[in-house]
Amino acid sequence: MARIRAQFQDYIHELQDEICSAMEQVDGKAKFQEDHWKRPGGGGGRSRVLQKGGLLEKAGVSTSVVHGPMPESLKEKMNTEGQDFFACGLSLVIHPESPLIPTVHANYRYFEMYDEEGRQLDGWFGGGTDLTPYYLDEADARHFHNCQKEHAEPHGTELYPAYKKQCDEYFWNHHRGEARGIGGTFYDYRKADEERQLEDWMAFNMDMGRSFLPGYLPIVEKHAGESYSEEQRYWQELRRGRYVEFNLVHDRGTLFGLQTKGRTESILMSLPPRVRWDYNYQPPEGSPEQELVAVLQNPRPWADE
Amino acid sequence: MARIRAQFQDYIHELQDEICSAMEQVDGKAKFQEDHWKRPGGGGGRSRVLQKGGLLEKAGVSTSVVHGPMPESLKEKMNTEGQDFFACGLSLVIHPESPLIPTVHANYRYFEMYDEEGRQLDGWFGGGTDLTPYYLDEADARHFHNCQKEHAEPHGTELYPAYKKQCDEYFWNHHRGEARGIGGTFYDYRKADEERQLEDWMAFNMDMGRSFLPGYLPIVEKHAGESYSEEQRYWQELRRGRYVEFNLVHDRGTLFGLQTKGRTESILMSLPPRVRWDYNYQPPEGSPEQELVAVLQNPRPWADE
Repeated sequence: MARIRAQFQDYIHELQDEICSAMEQVDGKAKFQEDHWKRPGGGGGRSRVLQKGGLLEKAGVSTSVVHGPMPESLKEKMNTEGQDFFACGLSLVIHPESPLIPTVHANYRYFEMYDEEGRQLDGWFGGGTDLTPYYLDEADARHFHNCQKEHAEPHGTELYPAYKKQCDEYFWNHHRGEARGIGGTFYDYRKADEERQLEDWMAFNMDMGRSFLPGYLPIVEKHAGESYSEEQRYWQELRRGRYVEFNLVHDRGTLFGLQTKGRTESILMSLPPRVRWDYNYQPPEGSPEQELVAVLQNPRPWADE
Repeated sequence: MARIRAQFQDYIHELQDEICSAMEQVDGKAKFQEDHWKRPGGGGGRSRVLQKGGLLEKAGVSTSVVHGPMPESLKEKMNTEGQDFFACGLSLVIHPESPLIPTVHANYRYFEMYDEEGRQLDGWFGGGTDLTPYYLDEADARHFHNCQKEHAEPHGTELYPAYKKQCDEYFWNHHRGEARGIGGTFYDYRKADEERQLEDWMAFNMDMGRSFLPGYLPIVEKHAGESYSEEQRYWQELRRGRYVEFNLVHDRGTLFGLQTKGRTESILMSLPPRVRWDYNYQPPEGSPEQELVAVLQNPRPWADE
């Protein structure tokens, strides 16, 4: 298992380099600033953040490799006898300045758990990526989902449909009765079973990580030159409020980070740079803003059959 | 007990009228918009919000009177056999536009719980108010705390010191290692005991509600005419991000509202109108911004001895 750990760790660092370099290129102005941090309980991370760019208002692409004794809160929550853990992953959120370019999130992770004598009890992969547009562009939605489907398919045709559904379920803002965005894929606890070895899940997770740039970059490039109004920007800032609500109220990843005493600034780098909350704002009937909300309230299929 | 319920209910509605009218007067431009809402499980509320005023960017002063079967999530959390509940309260948050005027929050509430046959099992009061400045003005802090102390004192000299301490503990942003603001008072589960009847706690809570306007209004009036810079406004928006973090991650009142299926827009009207999250922003050493943070990290006594 030490081999899997080492291999996936190398992979996320390479993926981080590749994604940061592509995002700097498309931004054309700002560069990622890197911070290394150490976790008191063991391990640490490499946070990279680009702010106030030409196209990207705030982008965080971070990796972390943490380990040590399981925090009590985590033991209780997982209902486990595991004493120590290891977790590594890449996590990214990109907030473009233009309301015509969607926000995107992706995460690819590996988790291991050990008993008192350091024997491995369990190991699993998780991950996924999802798109949060401020205006619905159906071609973008189809492209993003088809890209997920194509990368998942070599590993089993049942995977994309199952993880598309889980994504819609997971990124659900319960208190609003609407999805955070138009989804993508989400999967967790992918362990060795009758059909697949842990190595197979690693290969799957790596391919899903490779889907990120071809899924998102063409969407950024397509809308990069489009002009937008102050009203569209206002709407984007209001919708970013829903993004904050999801991340702080419902997101297990954020909670896991705060509970395991991760670095707060690295965990919360996912939050959008400028946000608004107006009381009870309702977009006009028949407006593009209202059309987006209707789709978020009733998630649709997007990939080709 | 039906008498206490009725009396406190009337009180919060009168207090709502009084506070709204005083805040409209000091704002000088905008008016509160009122929404009545019904809760599916029983009861409802009267939300009043003023937005984009002359002085107040967003102010919510709401009352709610809700009752019905205890939601399962609440039963588990309270570890109770209560079957039905009744809760009423006034809740307010005021976000002035100027970074030189502090944000303020107050809440005064009463809760009852009943068994299967409708017999009352329990009843208690809770409440308090706390101040969140963006720049520390020591005279403001002393005035606000002294006002709390003076209103609490006739009910027992031990109350203000105990509830000042609880306020510092409650409004603590654990993941940041700092207080939300410079405190005030916070108390909960104030039930009949050897020293005080439930009626005594009601009288106390009513007096604390009456402390709000004399505590806050003079601070608003003092800073209303002061000009401020873009940089000070920027700092205010960043600090408002911490306010959002506290309310969505740690605040029991917000959680209670969302769990009991309260009206989301009324619960989240506490969130500031414009907010920023920059990655890892650190105010310069020795700046007024840094001075505020130092006080938030180490809460101080403010009332006169």
